[in-house]
Amino acid sequence: IEAGDQDRLDTLLEPMHAADVADVIENLSPARRRQFLTLWSGEIDGDILSEIDEAIRDEVVLQLPRSVLADAVREMDSDDIVDLIEDLDEPEQREVLAALDDSDRAAVEQSLTYPEYSAGRMMQSEVVTAPEHWTVGDAIDHLRNEDDLPDQFYHVVLVDPRRRPLGYVALGRLLSSPRTAMLRDITEDSFRPISALAKEADVAYAFNQYHLISEPVVDEHDRLVGVITIDDAMEVLDDEHEEDILLLAGVSEESSIADSVVETVRQRAPWLTVNIFTALMAATVISLFEGAIARLVALAVLMPIVASMGGNAGTQTLTVVVRGLATKSLTTANTWRIIRREAVVGMVNGAMFAVMMGAVAYIWFRDPGLSAVIAVAMVVNLTVAAVGGVLVPLTLNKLGADPALASPTFVTTVTDVVGFFAFLGMAQSFLL
Amino acid sequence: IEAGDQDRLDTLLEPMHAADVADVIENLSPARRRQFLTLWSGEIDGDILSEIDEAIRDEVVLQLPRSVLADAVREMDSDDIVDLIEDLDEPEQREVLAALDDSDRAAVEQSLTYPEYSAGRMMQSEVVTAPEHWTVGDAIDHLRNEDDLPDQFYHVVLVDPRRRPLGYVALGRLLSSPRTAMLRDITEDSFRPISALAKEADVAYAFNQYHLISEPVVDEHDRLVGVITIDDAMEVLDDEHEEDILLLAGVSEESSIADSVVETVRQRAPWLTVNIFTALMAATVISLFEGAIARLVALAVLMPIVASMGGNAGTQTLTVVVRGLATKSLTTANTWRIIRREAVVGMVNGAMFAVMMGAVAYIWFRDPGLSAVIAVAMVVNLTVAAVGGVLVPLTLNKLGADPALASPTFVTTVTDVVGFFAFLGMAQSFLL
Repeated sequence: IEAGDQDRLDTLLEPMHAADVADVIENLSPARRRQFLTLWSGEIDGDILSEIDEAIRDEVVLQLPRSVLADAVREMDSDDIVDLIEDLDEPEQREVLAALDDSDRAAVEQSLTYPEYSAGRMMQSEVVTAPEHWTVGDAIDHLRNEDDLPDQFYHVVLVDPRRRPLGYVALGRLLSSPRTAMLRDITEDSFRPISALAKEADVAYAFNQYHLISEPVVDEHDRLVGVITIDDAMEVLDDEHEEDILLLAGVSEESSIADSVVETVRQRAPWLTVNIFTALMAATVISLFEGAIARLVALAVLMPIVASMGGNAGTQTLTVVVRGLATKSLTTANTWRIIRREAVVGMVNGAMFAVMMGAVAYIWFRDPGLSAVIAVAMVVNLTVAAVGGVLVPLTLNKLGADPALASPTFVTTVTDVVGFFAFLGMAQSFLL
Repeated sequence: IEAGDQDRLDTLLEPMHAADVADVIENLSPARRRQFLTLWSGEIDGDILSEIDEAIRDEVVLQLPRSVLADAVREMDSDDIVDLIEDLDEPEQREVLAALDDSDRAAVEQSLTYPEYSAGRMMQSEVVTAPEHWTVGDAIDHLRNEDDLPDQFYHVVLVDPRRRPLGYVALGRLLSSPRTAMLRDITEDSFRPISALAKEADVAYAFNQYHLISEPVVDEHDRLVGVITIDDAMEVLDDEHEEDILLLAGVSEESSIADSVVETVRQRAPWLTVNIFTALMAATVISLFEGAIARLVALAVLMPIVASMGGNAGTQTLTVVVRGLATKSLTTANTWRIIRREAVVGMVNGAMFAVMMGAVAYIWFRDPGLSAVIAVAMVVNLTVAAVGGVLVPLTLNKLGADPALASPTFVTTVTDVVGFFAFLGMAQSFLL
């Protein structure tokens, strides 16, 4: 299709949703994407542009003819423009801003004054407001006469003369109330204005926890500056999850299926480098017991089992803890309960697999001493894995780091070192 | 506080949001929870009940006085009742159904006829509809006179005389249009009815991908049976992510921070059992080379490094692939590109770390042959890890299994076996 047939492209992509067109663009190889954009760039509009993944959007923006870009941004909501512009370099930023009309530009510039990943960057400035003394009839008449309404809105926000939000009315409520009802009498309980400085992850959490649809955003003086809607919160929630899952696997949070080989290597290598150092630490522990291994090779055969079981048990615990922290279900109130529970679970699992592994080792090597040593090492390592699996992410979190980022390395280092040390050390002391 | 002081509890919990009260209840230990419910069960309402985690909701329901339960369910939306009732045993189910009025009961029973995890179970039956020939004025008058409206709704769905949905009007649009406008002229483009049999994961994906707010649900005859709103989709999305992240770590998807020791052991042990078998396979590979290890103990020191690097690289790749499948960004169209990319990335990373590890091994053991062997084994294992990391989840997905569930085991088994075999095998052939 990329063989230059513009008409076929048109017929194929015309009926598609902007989000799907964006996916098509993301899935092309970089070279194909360039061909595609030369052919089809005239048709790229604001909707498609805001759906394209950040990783490749810069590239797409740079290739778009200036006039197409200007038209595209003019039809975007202010939050999508902010999202687009924050990744661009200075000259392109200025170009996009110049294409906007004055009120949009002011809104985007205000949004950019807030820190990255804050509610101020998520919000759109287009809000429907009403003075608190209005009736339902006043509001409906106002809406009918206003021609610059946002594409989607779910509440009318009541503001005082200084533009401080006082409450909001759901549209369903507005429609089902008599024209004479006062807006202030039909406001919703769920009203909870968000500070523009709030972290986006906390905003997404609040939307999910309290089933919010849209919430007003206020500045330091409690004045209304914008509104955040649930679809933006859903996107942030999705990104946060994605980040957690990738970080836990040691993949850069910016990775995307559309990345090139070079980018992918760059994203994966750092973690592998860390891993080679921790693996060398484990190897150093083993080398302390070279003499023992030379005399009893069965130790070399069995030692990875102890380490691997510890690594797995540790990963289980730390994942539950990282999720608990992310969903705010792990709090100071239940931390001690969780540490105790995990330690007991570690000991119980350790005891179960100690019996199993002791039996297997006996059948294999017919050496009761070796069986006893691997059994005890298993209990020790699974207990350490459990405690480490709780304490490492909790400590990282206390220090202000992302617990998903470094926990797996720390925990598996601990379980490897303890696993090899406990097993080989006990073997050297008691068997040889 | 649990010392029996009901008044203090009241003052503490009164101002809290139902979702937060539910969190408090979840975070209590089972014994405390029982005390709490005896004290405070009178105050548990439908909102709190629908927020409580499924894992402990049965327990809470069983302890509630029957009259409190009946009052609670009567104020719940039909989708929340379905969610509650599907986890209960027969006698409790019947009790809850008996407490409902006829129309609610019919709605809940219809929902229960659809399979678990389908759109039919997610939907609420409360929908606001209008005949297609109505004007804006007709709709507003109807809404003002109707007293049984859903708590929250975002669209008025246009239906034909056989209740087939034809389009919908956003409330914002309804409010801003003149009373004489025809509803059918102001419908939204985003309209895409969902089959009641659609999988809930696909529904959540569609809401996220197309920024939907609420969508009508239709039965096999295209008749309107309910509506799904974005907050339900957000919850499913959240659950799906949670499930993926827990499954990747080998933890049962039902695990919760509130679980007891016994439940936790039961959730974690199966995966550890699988892991002990795969670790035994790796140990068997090592035992094939006992002679080589006895003659050159350095092999035992270095072998876990090769296996561990392969395991890490494999986990990185498989996580990206599992996420790609979950977000539908990995499709048949780009599968080959991803396999090629990962294989090349694996070789490049393999080569980089081969050089690094070869150098370290030489400095450590001053044996050029050993350095060469570990370097080549590293390239082999990282390449195998990359290819395995793509093929294993893709194959599981093709077979209809959840790729997050078993991938990590398969992939680390492959990297352990290949890692040990390549390193020890080459050492035996070329060094001894």
